[in-house]
Amino acid sequence: MALDLAALHARLQAAAPLIQNITNTVVQQFSANVLLAVGAAPAMLDHEADAGQFARLADGILINFGTATNQQLLAADAAIRVARELGKPWVLDPVSVGVIDFRTSRIRQAAESRPTVIRGNASEIAALAGQGAGGRGVDATDEVDAVLVAAMSLAQSTGAVVAVSGARDAIVEVSGSTVRLARVGGGHALMPRVIGTGCSLGSLTAAYLAAQRAPDGTRLTGDFDATIAAHAHFKLAGEMAGKTAAGPGSFAVAFVDALYALASERMADADVRIEVREMPDTCGL
Amino acid sequence: MALDLAALHARLQAAAPLIQNITNTVVQQFSANVLLAVGAAPAMLDHEADAGQFARLADGILINFGTATNQQLLAADAAIRVARELGKPWVLDPVSVGVIDFRTSRIRQAAESRPTVIRGNASEIAALAGQGAGGRGVDATDEVDAVLVAAMSLAQSTGAVVAVSGARDAIVEVSGSTVRLARVGGGHALMPRVIGTGCSLGSLTAAYLAAQRAPDGTRLTGDFDATIAAHAHFKLAGEMAGKTAAGPGSFAVAFVDALYALASERMADADVRIEVREMPDTCGL
Amino acid sequence: MALDLAALHARLQAAAPLIQNITNTVVQQFSANVLLAVGAAPAMLDHEADAGQFARLADGILINFGTATNQQLLAADAAIRVARELGKPWVLDPVSVGVIDFRTSRIRQAAESRPTVIRGNASEIAALAGQGAGGRGVDATDEVDAVLVAAMSLAQSTGAVVAVSGARDAIVEVSGSTVRLARVGGGHALMPRVIGTGCSLGSLTAAYLAAQRAPDGTRLTGDFDATIAAHAHFKLAGEMAGKTAAGPGSFAVAFVDALYALASERMADADVRIEVREMPDTCGL
Repeated sequence: MALDLAALHARLQAAAPLIQNITNTVVQQFSANVLLAVGAAPAMLDHEADAGQFARLADGILINFGTATNQQLLAADAAIRVARELGKPWVLDPVSVGVIDFRTSRIRQAAESRPTVIRGNASEIAALAGQGAGGRGVDATDEVDAVLVAAMSLAQSTGAVVAVSGARDAIVEVSGSTVRLARVGGGHALMPRVIGTGCSLGSLTAAYLAAQRAPDGTRLTGDFDATIAAHAHFKLAGEMAGKTAAGPGSFAVAFVDALYALASERMADADVRIEVREMPDTCGL
Repeated sequence: MALDLAALHARLQAAAPLIQNITNTVVQQFSANVLLAVGAAPAMLDHEADAGQFARLADGILINFGTATNQQLLAADAAIRVARELGKPWVLDPVSVGVIDFRTSRIRQAAESRPTVIRGNASEIAALAGQGAGGRGVDATDEVDAVLVAAMSLAQSTGAVVAVSGARDAIVEVSGSTVRLARVGGGHALMPRVIGTGCSLGSLTAAYLAAQRAPDGTRLTGDFDATIAAHAHFKLAGEMAGKTAAGPGSFAVAFVDALYALASERMADADVRIEVREMPDTCGL
Repeated sequence: MALDLAALHARLQAAAPLIQNITNTVVQQFSANVLLAVGAAPAMLDHEADAGQFARLADGILINFGTATNQQLLAADAAIRVARELGKPWVLDPVSVGVIDFRTSRIRQAAESRPTVIRGNASEIAALAGQGAGGRGVDATDEVDAVLVAAMSLAQSTGAVVAVSGARDAIVEVSGSTVRLARVGGGHALMPRVIGTGCSLGSLTAAYLAAQRAPDGTRLTGDFDATIAAHAHFKLAGEMAGKTAAGPGSFAVAFVDALYALASERMADADVRIEVREMPDTCGL
């Protein structure tokens, strides 16, 4: 059965999921605008006294420790606990894992708390899988191809769908010895020149995951497919934005417009290829 | 005497009031740009050791606990205390009141500290008035019309002008058994798709309140009128922006341009209707 | 030897320095986008457990206490300590110094920690030099010309290059009894209407400083020249953006595009004048 991305997109717009974002202050505005553009409802709150209670209302959660303070770390703990308890989908963005020790320890702890999806750039996925040294801030220093085995290993050890952002995104799901690998092309060279295009993709992924669940939590579509749809939506909007942008400033504006304007049927134009592989031997990691 | 919105706008531009914003990190940039666009001066600072002292210099204050941390809550306490002591105008945005317990308790405490204006969406105003369950994040789930009596009750109990944002904003002032109710139409369907269009209206309201006061604190115009002017300015700018916007990204840009470009005489075009009513029986709330 | 701004610009693009920004939450997104637009890599992190370790990886650091919390203040302490230990360039933006006591004490402490550059508006430079009362938030109330002697005094007492932003920026370096003073014209009247155009110039200055150092820390160009280049780049981009902007919203977008589009050879068009003076008697400050 082919992946019907248009249906997933339509479901996102119909569901208008409420997404709780515990994320860095650099990208909060952009991430909120990305969610509003696609029809989801964003919420950010960083107080540990409220975060767990709010998570009960949220349809999906994004965790990103980019500028985490002690209060935000406690808020994330509370939200993750509720997500696990209630089986709500949540996405971990392991920004700068492996680069700095304290944050790395907190990200590893979160990664062991059964995130639905882990989304990062190649350096971050490699570092979290125990391979490579991570990035230096928001930059990826590895390429997606070079970290595919690491991504598979991470998917296997955490049970999460693992998404690697890059020139051609990779999305990996491991089930027993079977690996499903999707590659999503498109986008535009200016995307990495706009802050938050990575981080907000994590928020959008949480929105797609949430929208593919019935009110009782039943999955209408698998998390692998929902993650692909989020990445396809982003890449298509990036392509559209690139056609009119004169630089990163106008690209950011056009990108939000494109996320909003994208019709469900246009999702079929996404450059998505899916293959099934045997799980490689990753003991060497 | 008819409300001379052009004069209020001109006074805002002449006064260039300094507005202290203790507000959530998602909208700080947008709120600052809104204030700069209309000729006011924004300031944000979240340390309790400085917030009270700064409030003595500020012409008006906006309080919004959207992403409040313990330090920001203490900073708000200090700023509110100074505002009350010196009779400075301040606006409370009760974002997500009624949804989460800790924040709700802090918002109620602030609402009892004699804010000059309380501005929120319909769900928030209903919840703060003790009616309804509040919103789910930034979304309103009630309509403005449905919460008019709640708004009146809140205005009566707090002494504040109460503003409800929606398709047609409502601004309510209660004096004894007399209610003045203004409705402000206009705007554009894309406004709720841009994060911060609600929160920054609170900042703009604080700016209008501040600008209508002489240096010795004397009110040149009533707070009800000043609040109407802020809402009219916003709705007009929204209409202007909607004429060229291709989506929420370009709308946000055009909106800031329109706030800046709006000439005082254009304020007369605002869709404002004011009526006077008897205070209804709100015991049932 | 004439100042070859084109060469400094080309070196910035080649070096792609990693700039750690401990800065206020209002401008984090804009500052990150400014750095990305010019080819640098931004990083923001506010946890004291990570900030010092990250500073070892960073090529340059920007410190701005605009919305500093206790954690961010500790993070700044850690980053500054590492910068001093390793001789890394760092920029201090003394936002609102002299206006509020607690922040002022922290800014003075930072100013005594040998920043490479201090960049502020006229009010802030005057206040930090012990002359004048500082600004009221982001506004300058003095003009650049009026604070030149204060800037020289501050440069002498701190050992920093001191940059004063205004209609014609001033950059001052004092060596013994010799003062080098650069004035940089250009820009556009809308620049002060966009939040972060001052703060992000501090980040850009850190990037230019970092790019003019070899991997072993050797200076390829002096810090005075690097600071001039950052200011010239900004002013040129402001001029370019002003040609198409309809207001502060579209100006901000066009400005980021212009920062990105500026070719190295265009740097020669900057309105930069440099003179050498004797250090005046500043005892009167």
